Amino acid sequence: MSAEARFLTLLRLLADDPAARGLMDDAAVLDLPASQLVLTSDTMVEGVHYLPTDPPDAVGWKLAAVNLSDLAAKGARPIGCLLNYALSGDDDWDSGFLEGLGEALNRHAMPLLGGDTVKMPTGAPRSVSLTAIGEAAGAVPARGGAQAGDRLYVTGPVGDAGVGLDLARADPAASGPLVDAYRRPRPRLAEGALLAPHVSAMMDISDGLLIDAARMGAASGLAVVIDHIPLSPAVERTRGGSSAVMIAAASAGDDYQLLFAMPAAMRPPVAAIPVGHLRAGGGLTLMIDGAVMPLPARLGWEHG
Amino acid sequence: MSAEARFLTLLRLLADDPAARGLMDDAAVLDLPASQLVLTSDTMVEGVHYLPTDPPDAVGWKLAAVNLSDLAAKGARPIGCLLNYALSGDDDWDSGFLEGLGEALNRHAMPLLGGDTVKMPTGAPRSVSLTAIGEAAGAVPARGGAQAGDRLYVTGPVGDAGVGLDLARADPAASGPLVDAYRRPRPRLAEGALLAPHVSAMMDISDGLLIDAARMGAASGLAVVIDHIPLSPAVERTRGGSSAVMIAAASAGDDYQLLFAMPAAMRPPVAAIPVGHLRAGGGLTLMIDGAVMPLPARLGWEHG
Repeated sequence: MSAEARFLTLLRLLADDPAARGLMDDAAVLDLPASQLVLTSDTMVEGVHYLPTDPPDAVGWKLAAVNLSDLAAKGARPIGCLLNYALSGDDDWDSGFLEGLGEALNRHAMPLLGGDTVKMPTGAPRSVSLTAIGEAAGAVPARGGAQAGDRLYVTGPVGDAGVGLDLARADPAASGPLVDAYRRPRPRLAEGALLAPHVSAMMDISDGLLIDAARMGAASGLAVVIDHIPLSPAVERTRGGSSAVMIAAASAGDDYQLLFAMPAAMRPPVAAIPVGHLRAGGGLTLMIDGAVMPLPARLGWEHG
Repeated sequence: MSAEARFLTLLRLLADDPAARGLMDDAAVLDLPASQLVLTSDTMVEGVHYLPTDPPDAVGWKLAAVNLSDLAAKGARPIGCLLNYALSGDDDWDSGFLEGLGEALNRHAMPLLGGDTVKMPTGAPRSVSLTAIGEAAGAVPARGGAQAGDRLYVTGPVGDAGVGLDLARADPAASGPLVDAYRRPRPRLAEGALLAPHVSAMMDISDGLLIDAARMGAASGLAVVIDHIPLSPAVERTRGGSSAVMIAAASAGDDYQLLFAMPAAMRPPVAAIPVGHLRAGGGLTLMIDGAVMPLPARLGWEHG
């Protein structure tokens, strides 16, 4: 069996949902009750969105996770996905990728429904895309719905993935929770579904707390104040808890925590950490220990 | 404004459907009555799926058209699409691509709802993906539904695009109906919608009449006989009407005619040309002027 035939066989094993029609048809067909459909798509390019030394199963996992994270930000339940895969010419890499992708899809109950597998000319950088379809039960939060006076929360500490990326870059064999945070992010689907009916605005932190909070403020026509940057114990053990570490954590990408705004009188229905608030005006203000700090030159990852 | 900012501005102009949320959110959100969703995705790679000398607007048009053709094969109405675009570093190429894409989307009422724009490392071949979502009103035909005794039809002559590809390869400045058939294929959406309730099997001819008919036969567990290969006047004028020309036309890709099976007693509700029939058994038989012909070594395009 050729490498490509083997890849397609593995892919078909993964696409066992009846809507996928065994990947043998022109399209997937899905019966759906009246609903709100949530659609998102992400492309990951070798050397741009992940390190060439990252293990293939981590790249597969991450491609699923970043799309699932976009569904989480809408409170949506995954319905299915389509994979656009460029065969790399390296059979082990391709099957390792599918293994990690399949693990993430199974874990989060997102069936593979279709897509397209192509061959790239030899030597081209790998590029993989996934399009995810989700279903939202009720109100679908937007980035731009925040109100003046809303509190801002995150579903967990930020900066783990940023430190993990540094560690993986220095040593591709590095492991541990920070490297895992970078390579195998966890989409906050359960939290997103519980939060969606209550938040005034929500998004996932894919590019960094500062830049993503600034985007929420801009979309809502409001000023954003970040007055707390929560670090994990793992980051504090590795890097300490200085202002510089906090600012680096708040401008690093790949966290995939949810960032949401909620009226001050409400209590979040999930574990969440207050990080600031929104008020009339525009722009972003960063405070650490009560003091206004100069913003870093780079607020986050600009092309995530 | 940077080239990337300009591209994103053009992209937002194209994504004017409210469901796209101005491409400013994590995901597109679509209100949908109970329906059957049809999902398809195609990737086109420079030098693999199109010629590096093809004009960018033709590549944009074609990416939309090949996905629309998959919807047509399901009798589906386009609902929207997501674009995964790798910026080429060539501003004129990128905006030319969007122009052709936008033209095809507008022509066929398929709104752009989202996607992802990334930068590829310099020198990488271009790769573009589109995921299309359609809605089917009633029964959704599959490849595998044909019955023994069914007649096989196509919605028009085959081979135009194959000759067009040869002409464009010989001279990138070539023009005319055959080059247009290759560069700007027309998805048969109206025909697909009219046919879907009546056919026992349907697919689009993307890889060649012979290989696609063989796939329909295999999926239906039947033998396929092709006893007529319809050529267009343009192909006959350019190449003549010999058996060799017919066989080349039936094994060339990119036609995007619909191929469908229907009981012999029924009359197709659209203009259609009979090309053969299905019967018990397996395999593909090719007849020209009543004589069985040896099959060509290559039945069609294997990785379209």
